[in-house]
Amino acid sequence: MPVFLDATDADFDAAFSTLLSAKREDSPDVDEVVAGIIADVRARGDAALIELTAKFDRLDLTPDTLRFSEAEVDALIAQVPAHEREALELAAERIRAYHVRQMPQDQSWTDPEGAMLGWRWSPVSAAGLYVPGGLASYPSSVLMNAIPAKVAGVDRLAIVVPTPGGQANPLVLLAARLAGVDEIYRIGGAQAVAALAYGTETIAPVDKITGPGNAYVAAAKRRVFGKVGIDMIAGPSEILVIADADNDPDWLALDLLSQAEHDESAQSILITDSPVMAKAVSVAMDRFLTTLERRDIAGASWRDFGAIITVPDLDTAAALSNRVAPEHLELCVEDPDALAEKITHAGAIFLGAWTPEAIGDYVGGPNHVLPTARSARFSSGLSVMDFLKRTTLAKMTPGALAAIGPAAETLAISESLEAHGLSVRARLNRLNEG
Amino acid sequence: MPVFLDATDADFDAAFSTLLSAKREDSPDVDEVVAGIIADVRARGDAALIELTAKFDRLDLTPDTLRFSEAEVDALIAQVPAHEREALELAAERIRAYHVRQMPQDQSWTDPEGAMLGWRWSPVSAAGLYVPGGLASYPSSVLMNAIPAKVAGVDRLAIVVPTPGGQANPLVLLAARLAGVDEIYRIGGAQAVAALAYGTETIAPVDKITGPGNAYVAAAKRRVFGKVGIDMIAGPSEILVIADADNDPDWLALDLLSQAEHDESAQSILITDSPVMAKAVSVAMDRFLTTLERRDIAGASWRDFGAIITVPDLDTAAALSNRVAPEHLELCVEDPDALAEKITHAGAIFLGAWTPEAIGDYVGGPNHVLPTARSARFSSGLSVMDFLKRTTLAKMTPGALAAIGPAAETLAISESLEAHGLSVRARLNRLNEG
Repeated sequence: MPVFLDATDADFDAAFSTLLSAKREDSPDVDEVVAGIIADVRARGDAALIELTAKFDRLDLTPDTLRFSEAEVDALIAQVPAHEREALELAAERIRAYHVRQMPQDQSWTDPEGAMLGWRWSPVSAAGLYVPGGLASYPSSVLMNAIPAKVAGVDRLAIVVPTPGGQANPLVLLAARLAGVDEIYRIGGAQAVAALAYGTETIAPVDKITGPGNAYVAAAKRRVFGKVGIDMIAGPSEILVIADADNDPDWLALDLLSQAEHDESAQSILITDSPVMAKAVSVAMDRFLTTLERRDIAGASWRDFGAIITVPDLDTAAALSNRVAPEHLELCVEDPDALAEKITHAGAIFLGAWTPEAIGDYVGGPNHVLPTARSARFSSGLSVMDFLKRTTLAKMTPGALAAIGPAAETLAISESLEAHGLSVRARLNRLNEG
Repeated sequence: MPVFLDATDADFDAAFSTLLSAKREDSPDVDEVVAGIIADVRARGDAALIELTAKFDRLDLTPDTLRFSEAEVDALIAQVPAHEREALELAAERIRAYHVRQMPQDQSWTDPEGAMLGWRWSPVSAAGLYVPGGLASYPSSVLMNAIPAKVAGVDRLAIVVPTPGGQANPLVLLAARLAGVDEIYRIGGAQAVAALAYGTETIAPVDKITGPGNAYVAAAKRRVFGKVGIDMIAGPSEILVIADADNDPDWLALDLLSQAEHDESAQSILITDSPVMAKAVSVAMDRFLTTLERRDIAGASWRDFGAIITVPDLDTAAALSNRVAPEHLELCVEDPDALAEKITHAGAIFLGAWTPEAIGDYVGGPNHVLPTARSARFSSGLSVMDFLKRTTLAKMTPGALAAIGPAAETLAISESLEAHGLSVRARLNRLNEG
């Protein structure tokens, strides 16, 4: 049974805090195993990759077959039915159109002292994208990771995807093709992350690694962080739906289930100012959970981490939502724009009952890689910014240095950094001589 | 002796790779100690903070004296000499003016299908800034961390600064005041990071922690990451100077020394197309190293990690610099703008010989918290973006859902996520009924 809470109850705060702090994920400690795998790939390169792939993926590779050839990709892509290809093309086009708008501008200006100041954005040169194999092999995630990288201008984008027993997902390869991915390798696990970070004879190292993965992949990403950049380590998915009385309970239940079906650790929360709607959604959940394909997963998630909270008004709903800082937030209310103004922390907001969260997973345009586990308080979803970096620019003139240099010298001396001060003073002295 | 390399030598590539991969920092393994300290602060709050501060900082506090009172801050600030106050005010003003320009814009638009898409930026609610005590207690770093946070709109900004034996740096407090810091606590070490992340009876928890610190602070930041956001873990400082024949070797030597004097692990590299200049700078370095206050530190850095590289032309210099991806890059050449166009990876570029790096440390305007250890390949200096997060927005109309919903359903089915598909289908069915 999910938790039923009433925000007007005396013990609500304690119960809500318990809900917020529920530990939903057990990370197995695989750090030592992963350290060994990384060391092995660093030391032996392709040979280690090939051995580990034979062991974990039951697949015999050679340095020549580590990478998919263009012909192999062509052949697999040809298997994709037309309606799936078209859907993926529409998704790619919409995701690209959204992310193109995220490109930040360079700036430079001259200040009143005559100094030129500014900054310049430039892309990461090479990026690697981890794509899980098997059940969680999502072509949509390939688009969501690869398109921002290519929009940012990443020159070389490599994908690693395990193909257990040699089975590849044609839709994943099509997504990679549509996104403009340059290289695709049939490797996975910590060994694939190590290969991307350190390189092997066949695989050139990259500068940034993104994409979801299991505990081994997550541990490997943590370990190579610093050598390369990584994206966030994603936790289980979450949705919070704020709904008023004027909703179809089936719609709301299906939205809650579309997170719950991801993972037994996913969390779905409904907050409503209508006790009648609260009850109706609960009934609809139970009904769908008897027939849904993934009813075991979704049922466990709803039972262990689900919650239905009734509130006296929507302002209270917004305040509670801000404490959750949900990954996905649906505002199924009469005036979603007004309510959105009161939201301070959320990864993505879906406005109005005609915007199911699943639209955002596939074809809306915004990224579906979003901050989980309350981290929307301080972080953002994946974007072109993850594949760009900013170089700051400063150019003094003699006059500008004369104006601001003495202050720099004073501060350098106050911090006991003599050479800092002298580097400014030497130039100021030249001006005084001149 | 620093390394002298000639880019035209046969064995140059190997020597340059060795230089790039030199391990400059030994991080003592303090992880277990830090884990214990964090657990203690989580369990016992203020009591643990007070005990640990008595132990490490030889300072007896009570819950009432953990935080500086306004009167205490006023009294300390009154000690700052006028010329130092004015220098700090100029720095604060220029840093603020630069960072205000970094504020990103919200966007929203309606696409051809009628869907509203966009995003909205919002500040982190509460941030904590670690300020080291003792020798590395730099008021300039307080400005560089605190001003971007306040420009971003952080409502509550707390500083923790250890005051060993009760000694506080008046300039640090003045910098905090100028930057608009809200709370200042006289605690440091891993215990201060734990207090910021988890809160105590006296200190409310924050959402993001930034600022430099020793190995204990760095280990604590790594440990609380996820519970809160953190900035990068900074390594020792670096400068790369590209210079042509038309330079004052004293200026270049002082610029190289202004990194070397920070830390024995700092790295200073000169790349020049003039063998005469290479020699002259080397001679100037040796001369300054006999008199500089911090000659022991700077001398060790120059001896162990310094390098002078001669190149046949400036294009080669730019290419080598891009392999280094330096934190600070000075372009002391006739046409620095043209050379800057060839730079793909650098934290900050200082254009022309009139722009010593020290200007950027204090009063230039750009941030001096910059990516070290080659991480400018994939990351950027501190900015207002570190204190903002982006919420994506999507709002479908029935017409937009009719246009793109079927593709979402197709992809959901292809990924075996039935509830995702049904959440779209239920709405499409309503349209078909209508």
